[in-house]
Amino acid sequence: MKQKVAVLGPGSWGTALAQVLAENGHEVRLWGNNVAQINEINTYHTNRHYLPDLKIPETIKGETELKAAVKDVDAVLFVVPTKAIRAVAKEFSQVAENQPVIIHASKGLEQGSHKRISEVLTEEIAAEHRKGVVVLSGPSHAEEVAVHDITTITAACEDRKLAEYVQKLFMNDYFRIYTNPDVIGVETGAALKNIIALGAGALHGLSYGDDAKAAIMTRGLAEISRLGVAMGANPLTFIGLSGVGDLIVTCTSVHSRNWRAGNLLGKGHKLDEVLENMGMIVEGVSTTKAAKELADRLDVSMPITETIYDVLYNDKDVREACRELMTREGTFENEF
Amino acid sequence: MKQKVAVLGPGSWGTALAQVLAENGHEVRLWGNNVAQINEINTYHTNRHYLPDLKIPETIKGETELKAAVKDVDAVLFVVPTKAIRAVAKEFSQVAENQPVIIHASKGLEQGSHKRISEVLTEEIAAEHRKGVVVLSGPSHAEEVAVHDITTITAACEDRKLAEYVQKLFMNDYFRIYTNPDVIGVETGAALKNIIALGAGALHGLSYGDDAKAAIMTRGLAEISRLGVAMGANPLTFIGLSGVGDLIVTCTSVHSRNWRAGNLLGKGHKLDEVLENMGMIVEGVSTTKAAKELADRLDVSMPITETIYDVLYNDKDVREACRELMTREGTFENEF
Repeated sequence: MKQKVAVLGPGSWGTALAQVLAENGHEVRLWGNNVAQINEINTYHTNRHYLPDLKIPETIKGETELKAAVKDVDAVLFVVPTKAIRAVAKEFSQVAENQPVIIHASKGLEQGSHKRISEVLTEEIAAEHRKGVVVLSGPSHAEEVAVHDITTITAACEDRKLAEYVQKLFMNDYFRIYTNPDVIGVETGAALKNIIALGAGALHGLSYGDDAKAAIMTRGLAEISRLGVAMGANPLTFIGLSGVGDLIVTCTSVHSRNWRAGNLLGKGHKLDEVLENMGMIVEGVSTTKAAKELADRLDVSMPITETIYDVLYNDKDVREACRELMTREGTFENEF
Repeated sequence: MKQKVAVLGPGSWGTALAQVLAENGHEVRLWGNNVAQINEINTYHTNRHYLPDLKIPETIKGETELKAAVKDVDAVLFVVPTKAIRAVAKEFSQVAENQPVIIHASKGLEQGSHKRISEVLTEEIAAEHRKGVVVLSGPSHAEEVAVHDITTITAACEDRKLAEYVQKLFMNDYFRIYTNPDVIGVETGAALKNIIALGAGALHGLSYGDDAKAAIMTRGLAEISRLGVAMGANPLTFIGLSGVGDLIVTCTSVHSRNWRAGNLLGKGHKLDEVLENMGMIVEGVSTTKAAKELADRLDVSMPITETIYDVLYNDKDVREACRELMTREGTFENEF
């Protein structure tokens, strides 16, 4: 059945998801606060800064007024940057008039509090203006979804009916959705994978090969799972699309910012040089700090994360760091 | 403590593992039945056909007589091709005089019987000539181990002490071993990954991108895990080095034979053309048949494997096969 959906955040991923919804026959409003960008979407049906080659379906209506964007909607999809989530959620709660399904497709942990995004949304949106919170996450490049490449992602919610609602909303012959009840596992996997991408890039920068890449991805996933389980996740979620699936895309694509930053670290550059060279935010750098603090607080062993933390923040030599990781006392798999 | 180890099978992987053992200070005999090759190893300390650039440690002694190779050894490592395992194990049992630890580093299922390699070894080697069976498996290119690249693998045995013995035997600063009690999970992961490599290659041949690669690897792993669990494995083993780790190496390296064969299938070539073009064995082709038969027998749903089976054996169009997979009814993750 045709649904009214507000997509908040007209970046590349928000725009690609809006396109999927519009192609599935839903009424889509795409909200952003950049007037020139929204005018471009409404006038030319393009979003050149984020998806230069995309012709946006003309049924998608750009909106700069949040109140108008969310009026009478069945669902609201948050795709704003992590650092803006709390403010946008608060504003939404103030202007909302009904109780739509809340969906988010943002990745990360809140700076400082280390809260998951669904926690922030639940805190800021009044109960009468939200019907659950469903997380959309998985291995997905907006550029590939925009051209109808095959993509699979997870819709996570403790309430199975809401997860299935979101599955139906998005699913079509190029975009396939799997439901999952484990919100904590899906959100932590998505947030923490960038740490491993930094490490995989560093090993490449050090000229290590495929074996080393597989090693850091697998053992990195093991410690992400450990932290996730300490936070309340199901370890099996990390074998899924939001875990290993997203890790594969992030660690094997040279387009990943975190991988590229790690690659420069591996070549011997210092963190401040790397960040200057990149000229944009490298999420894995702050995520490493957040994960280290969470691991300390929850008493979880995360040797790879701790090593990357020392390289980033304590000026540790990256080659010596590898040697220390490899010569730790032998251990075992399958800890849960 | 210095151990005497016989390595059976002087291919690239057997030679690389023999080098690790020799560098760790053990006495190593490398057995094979090609006299010219063994002479080359003893005279020139090279194995040019398999590892052209390697200078083999001079302490490794090549042997063509199995009885001499295994005399008084503490451990025997089988690294022969799957189709030769039963015959070599039988011969070993006949000439053995003591009770060494049995280790194997071969991957696959026996043709016809679909038995795992440790099952074949247990059947053929008399109990008085074996102290357990330990499986060595994980993401590893012999060429990378030979040059001391970083590599991590799993040593699996129900008997923890034996797994730890093998861990100590091999572990050093470039080769790190994790123990795991789940022999069934480790062996099935290693054997079945080639099916997914075929599929990942096919998607590349069809010009799909990173999202599709991550999709088939993740959902492929899910169904491999399902079959493994039906055979008695722990699902969490598939998140480890012999599962996702090996899958990453196999599906993201253009050097993988199975990936290359799949790529040709994706470009529209028929199976007989592909096999002729490859000019060598593509394990995934027979493994797909074995997995399909096992899945039917154990009543396990394996939609990706069944689809690849239809492309390989029933002349199904590969693009239509993708469309059917994507448009199946929506389902869920985390089934265990």
